[in-house]
Amino acid sequence: MSPSRLSQILAAQHAGTPGNRIVRAMSERGALSAAEIARATGLARSTISTALSELKESGIVIEAADQNDTAKGVGRPAITLKLNPEAGTCVGVHLSLDSIQLVLADVSHSVIAEKSINLGVDYPVAAVSAAIKTAVARLYEENGLPLSRLLGLGVSVSGPVGPDGVIRHSSIVPSWTGTNVPRVFGELFRCPVFADNESNCAAVAEMMWGAAQGERDFVLFKIDLGVGGAIVHGGEVIRGIAGGAGEFGHISVEPNGDLCRCGNRGCLEIYASFNRPLAQMERTHGKRMTMDDVILLAENGDTGAQRLIADTGEVAGRGLAIIGTIINPPLIIIGGRLALAGNMLIDPLRRVFEKHTHLKPGRKSASGATRIAVGDFTGNDSLLGAVGMVLRSQGR
Amino acid sequence: MSPSRLSQILAAQHAGTPGNRIVRAMSERGALSAAEIARATGLARSTISTALSELKESGIVIEAADQNDTAKGVGRPAITLKLNPEAGTCVGVHLSLDSIQLVLADVSHSVIAEKSINLGVDYPVAAVSAAIKTAVARLYEENGLPLSRLLGLGVSVSGPVGPDGVIRHSSIVPSWTGTNVPRVFGELFRCPVFADNESNCAAVAEMMWGAAQGERDFVLFKIDLGVGGAIVHGGEVIRGIAGGAGEFGHISVEPNGDLCRCGNRGCLEIYASFNRPLAQMERTHGKRMTMDDVILLAENGDTGAQRLIADTGEVAGRGLAIIGTIINPPLIIIGGRLALAGNMLIDPLRRVFEKHTHLKPGRKSASGATRIAVGDFTGNDSLLGAVGMVLRSQGR
Repeated sequence: MSPSRLSQILAAQHAGTPGNRIVRAMSERGALSAAEIARATGLARSTISTALSELKESGIVIEAADQNDTAKGVGRPAITLKLNPEAGTCVGVHLSLDSIQLVLADVSHSVIAEKSINLGVDYPVAAVSAAIKTAVARLYEENGLPLSRLLGLGVSVSGPVGPDGVIRHSSIVPSWTGTNVPRVFGELFRCPVFADNESNCAAVAEMMWGAAQGERDFVLFKIDLGVGGAIVHGGEVIRGIAGGAGEFGHISVEPNGDLCRCGNRGCLEIYASFNRPLAQMERTHGKRMTMDDVILLAENGDTGAQRLIADTGEVAGRGLAIIGTIINPPLIIIGGRLALAGNMLIDPLRRVFEKHTHLKPGRKSASGATRIAVGDFTGNDSLLGAVGMVLRSQGR
Repeated sequence: MSPSRLSQILAAQHAGTPGNRIVRAMSERGALSAAEIARATGLARSTISTALSELKESGIVIEAADQNDTAKGVGRPAITLKLNPEAGTCVGVHLSLDSIQLVLADVSHSVIAEKSINLGVDYPVAAVSAAIKTAVARLYEENGLPLSRLLGLGVSVSGPVGPDGVIRHSSIVPSWTGTNVPRVFGELFRCPVFADNESNCAAVAEMMWGAAQGERDFVLFKIDLGVGGAIVHGGEVIRGIAGGAGEFGHISVEPNGDLCRCGNRGCLEIYASFNRPLAQMERTHGKRMTMDDVILLAENGDTGAQRLIADTGEVAGRGLAIIGTIINPPLIIIGGRLALAGNMLIDPLRRVFEKHTHLKPGRKSASGATRIAVGDFTGNDSLLGAVGMVLRSQGR
């Protein structure tokens, strides 16, 4: 996905907090008075007043030079406010299997640039920290921005991150286990650092700009080559005592099942990810394939591909029914790259989910049923969410 | 449990919100100035000021006659405040299988009286509403209290209650399904009515006065003749779109298992409740038994009783591992009457929980492990929580 495409999504879908909406209005229109902000955003004056105080305090908004200089004497000139050109930018980082993705965004939620650094598998912390520092410096230089105005760094990790920012254990980036992410990156960049698991970041992206906009309670369930997810309650991601909340892939559904990479047996991920189905497709079709290839084949009538996607939907639906029974959320967002299969996946998933959940829709009332929807982001969700964590902290 | 015992527990264990603590201090010491409240509670002056405003607004606290009348001229006399003798009382109601329990408490969290009304199984709404109204009126009369000062009614229901207060479906009290509890009881008593599922109420009791005091995030897991529970996040019970959150007994762990009373198959409750073990004990020992009988036998060396309790702990531990993987809570409280078996139940439960959860304690750090503790309440938890819901609303 190109930066401009991301920017379009963000611009088109952006809603967010009052602070975010004011920043957005200013980024589109320049200096505005409180009355003009009210007209532009539809927010109440008291809400605007509170949000502006916070935005001024955090240096995102400053008073503009008085634009009514020539109209002196005609009442009290309205104070106008504008985005601080020095207000700053945020960086999102996603630590994945063999590469690091970076995104640079400004406080108006515009993506300025993206970058990817390819690395070997299980890259070490120290060497990569230096590489990230260099890459970020170059991103700022290339875009003519002062690195001194870096407001914060959001880091998405392929593994559980405790509330203290320590990576608990990661089978994706094992040498990062035990790393205190805010400390390591804080020393590099001297700015606030936010770190969370990649699926929790993805949930932030869906909540800020995607399929969960305006929702304060939902579950994200990701089906990809692994299975993951996140639980959002009251607009906040539930993290858990060790950062493990939402690790849906590691629900042990078959206590004597196959060994999982996590060290347990019979984890949901073994049955509900597209890892095994992809290997079966490669075997029967005699060539290397991606998930996109399989989805395309299914769309073009390949019954084997269709069957594997539907079967994965059924197994995922059964696992999701456990989550639905426990959390009973208003909304479940299906993410991950297999979500691109659309109804081929979602129809069997929803049918099995409804069969195995405790509260059936429509017993005495049609209301109160959990809605299941496909997420807006698949590939770039964690990276977007990483920068989203920083942007959310600015609107407060 | 007698009322006096309940009162002792509440008095000894009570902590709660600043409002609760101020009410408690006043109930113990009479009229107090803000400075005296600060000394008695250890709360900050600003916290006290905010809480007092709310307490005065809701009529719980009133200004006392000036006690410094004789000291006039020596500075400004301190305003003292006291509990409003007319401030009122709350009633908790628990709707269970074949009876209704009532508890009457005052705003200082003292239990004034308890009552139980025996009814046939599946008692109808209209007849029982009238019976409750009569019983509450008599409770107030017997204790010389004005019914006009009933501040609120909390209702605990053996079934899911939606956020709208409607009972979704209940296999315990089927004829109540579809009842809008706040509407029915609001018409009877003309006061605010709070309604929730019995396990959610039990979690409120553990949070206000029991094993979860001071905890804002925990899971309650109840093992009794059924299995139930609750999820608390940020000090609030997660209710779910249809009131189903925390229905741990109806996680389908064996999709082709035995039919459950809920209409699904292979629910955790079938394997992890003490329903089947109790029937086995009755068969092998040739007489009717209660869970208490079995626990007593186990404590006295009956190996069959010990085995059934341990086995239930193992199955419960496996189910709980699913919940622990999904929520990763700091604390799990084991409630329900089987919790009275103590370590005979908890040791095997904890061992299996740790085996089947995703994040093992002590991999790189001993911190971050979920703590498992036995609840403080078993029998009366839902009734206490019912009145607790009302008392919590008063401290706000």
